[in-house]
Amino acid sequence: MPGNKISLNDAVARLRSAKEAQSFLEDLTTPAERCALEERWRIAQYLDAGELSYREIASTTTVARVARFLKAEPDGGYKIILNRIKP
Amino acid sequence: MPGNKISLNDAVARLRSAKEAQSFLEDLTTPAERCALEERWRIAQYLDAGELSYREIASTTTVARVARFLKAEPDGGYKIILNRIKP
Repeated sequence: MPGNKISLNDAVARLRSAKEAQSFLEDLTTPAERCALEERWRIAQYLDAGELSYREIASTTTVARVARFLKAEPDGGYKIILNRIKP
Repeated sequence: MPGNKISLNDAVARLRSAKEAQSFLEDLTTPAERCALEERWRIAQYLDAGELSYREIASTTTVARVARFLKAEPDGGYKIILNRIKP
């Protein structure tokens, strides 16, 4: 494999701003995928803040999925950023 | 909306390493989604390096999609990282 190839994880880690992340995600994901990812991240933040009950939103499947990943590991992926943005 | 909520773009921009990106993407995406995103990013790198012809891989739909986004804007999302990793 000639040339300089990097993994998706490495590529994402090299994004330097929200604007760059937006451009990259717009290329990488379909509008439907982006919508789903944005919804999961939004739900993760609400769940983490204790501001969301299962009854309050339509897709309990999505909430259950996010909650499972949020609770699975104390230093999991969502938590990295959630802890970082806490005042 | 109380609390400190940030967009997905902002969250992604705050990832500091490939390891953090991996953890975050593992929480955020399903295995099937992750596979699709990794494939698109791999194809983008091959196309950009001129190392991939349409005949060489199975999913021409995926290649066509990646090629379209790669060529759509000279400073588009894929290009941000592709230009960054060039020697």
